[in-house]
Amino acid sequence: MAKVLINGYGSIGKRVADAVSKQKDMEVIGVTKTKPDFEAKMAVDKGYKLYAAIPERKSLFEEKGVDIEGTIFDVIEDADIVVDCAPGGIGKENLENIYKKYNVKAILQGGEKAQYVEDNFNALWSYDRCYGKDYIRTVSCNTTGLCRTLYAINSATDIVKARVVLIRRGADPNDAKRGPINAIVPNPPTIPSHHGPDVCSVVPELEGKIITSAVIVPTTLMHMHSLMVETTGTTKDDIIDAIEKTPRIFTVSAEDGLNSTATIIEFARDLGRVRYDLNEIAIWKESINVVDNEVFLMQAVHQESDVIPENVDCIRAMLQMEDDNMKSIEMTNKAMGLMK
Amino acid sequence: MAKVLINGYGSIGKRVADAVSKQKDMEVIGVTKTKPDFEAKMAVDKGYKLYAAIPERKSLFEEKGVDIEGTIFDVIEDADIVVDCAPGGIGKENLENIYKKYNVKAILQGGEKAQYVEDNFNALWSYDRCYGKDYIRTVSCNTTGLCRTLYAINSATDIVKARVVLIRRGADPNDAKRGPINAIVPNPPTIPSHHGPDVCSVVPELEGKIITSAVIVPTTLMHMHSLMVETTGTTKDDIIDAIEKTPRIFTVSAEDGLNSTATIIEFARDLGRVRYDLNEIAIWKESINVVDNEVFLMQAVHQESDVIPENVDCIRAMLQMEDDNMKSIEMTNKAMGLMK
Repeated sequence: MAKVLINGYGSIGKRVADAVSKQKDMEVIGVTKTKPDFEAKMAVDKGYKLYAAIPERKSLFEEKGVDIEGTIFDVIEDADIVVDCAPGGIGKENLENIYKKYNVKAILQGGEKAQYVEDNFNALWSYDRCYGKDYIRTVSCNTTGLCRTLYAINSATDIVKARVVLIRRGADPNDAKRGPINAIVPNPPTIPSHHGPDVCSVVPELEGKIITSAVIVPTTLMHMHSLMVETTGTTKDDIIDAIEKTPRIFTVSAEDGLNSTATIIEFARDLGRVRYDLNEIAIWKESINVVDNEVFLMQAVHQESDVIPENVDCIRAMLQMEDDNMKSIEMTNKAMGLMK
Repeated sequence: MAKVLINGYGSIGKRVADAVSKQKDMEVIGVTKTKPDFEAKMAVDKGYKLYAAIPERKSLFEEKGVDIEGTIFDVIEDADIVVDCAPGGIGKENLENIYKKYNVKAILQGGEKAQYVEDNFNALWSYDRCYGKDYIRTVSCNTTGLCRTLYAINSATDIVKARVVLIRRGADPNDAKRGPINAIVPNPPTIPSHHGPDVCSVVPELEGKIITSAVIVPTTLMHMHSLMVETTGTTKDDIIDAIEKTPRIFTVSAEDGLNSTATIIEFARDLGRVRYDLNEIAIWKESINVVDNEVFLMQAVHQESDVIPENVDCIRAMLQMEDDNMKSIEMTNKAMGLMK
């Protein structure tokens, strides 16, 4: 059993902890928090061993009556790997100040920069490259969504040039601090945005072949991408077929009532998914089109959860637990109850 | 003085009435309403002669004590031209049932279909084609915004292929009925959207060279467009220069704090614009880029007001009041107090 420590039990960390717990070949040996909030209390209630991410804060947990086992330094030497789920930017500090010092393998999240790690992970594209490595980043929710769909397109034809406009959610559902409430924000206001290069950190062969622009809009549920991908030649049926064969992406039909990110999330709620997570990327079937060998489609990305199964596969690759990426994907999906 | 009747004093009609009133060579001989609401009362207070758009409803106005001159049929024969500002779909009915019957020239708005009229108007592209015509449509806010910017790009280079993703506002600010409140809606869910063909109704030479997709998001202030335009060759400086030379489009800088549609509207409010209308298209300077001869930019479109000066110019073209489109544009802009 691979021993996994989750450093930072927040939006991503709590989901990775739950997903790891469900796997047969790995276990969560502890989760960390910086403060004794409701998430910390619920972690303990769920049976996770809780550690203070910042040693000086351990007493805060005790004062609040939250069961705390110790600090991260009491558990880190027992871990085979740490999944760092700290807020963006902190992961890099943790890598330098903790993981490298304690010589423990670590996964950083997409909020960190690509150059701080040995390689960048997507289960479809770079599993083999990350196999046995020590410090790897699982890319962001948007990059993960793009990598999966571009993998499907690439399996049907050759990509000549990909253009993507990302329409990003303004804040997560639990975030009452951020906006916008009533505005469209070009973010970044420059073109290209960083999303294209981030895809290339996983898929170097797309260097010079992908350009992205991005805006932020007032919604909390999902991101959305409008893709325009020039290819050497393909058909709509081939693309639909490729999507069907690619794990973790599926088509939805506006005609079926799945006509917005709101109804897609309602679908995830009706599926009974915990926290209504939709780890798979939803592609609108009606939007899929091929005109002059250029593939068009629109997809919805659940920003809180699409990277979770990737973190699980990344653990398996880095700890050399399974050398076939498709087998790891299947194991992860089955344990998590994903559609495919 | 050209005698102009405004049929439908709503979001567009009230603005067209005000813009026409400000011109030296035309006057508003009346405005119509279907019901005696606050807009009807304010029209009378502002000195417009008010007529019932639907004859049977005239008594409703009298019951409410709103000064009503009569019905549309009491004034239509005095008009040189009618600007139809009825809700989408009604304009076509009015064209068949009223304007053609009374043999009066008429302008329909962008909510009507292109095929119902003789031609489609944008002051930069199709003024000459519409000159002296009887039934013309001024295209929608989105199409108008695209036409202006593509005109600028076309003046600097040749357009090979334009790809545009439109991020549309969900509802106008006065509209408490429509959504979405928290969702991104692919609308239409099919690609291409109708916006490309609508641009071609004004610019037939772009046929087969423009493809658009569109989503609706929870905001009321402005639409936004992300443009990717392949050309035969140009530079960023040439594009900025072309934008500067093109009327009714201008650049804003995110660095200056104009970093969202919200701050662009704040800018219009600070300009003292009535109803905070921004008739000009705002292009983010930071977003303008040329990579491999492809022009990238993002622009904001004030959906309630960008078509207003076009309606004024369209009147001048159809009534053969001025044969130089650039002179008409200048007259209109000056009278309305536009930047350029």
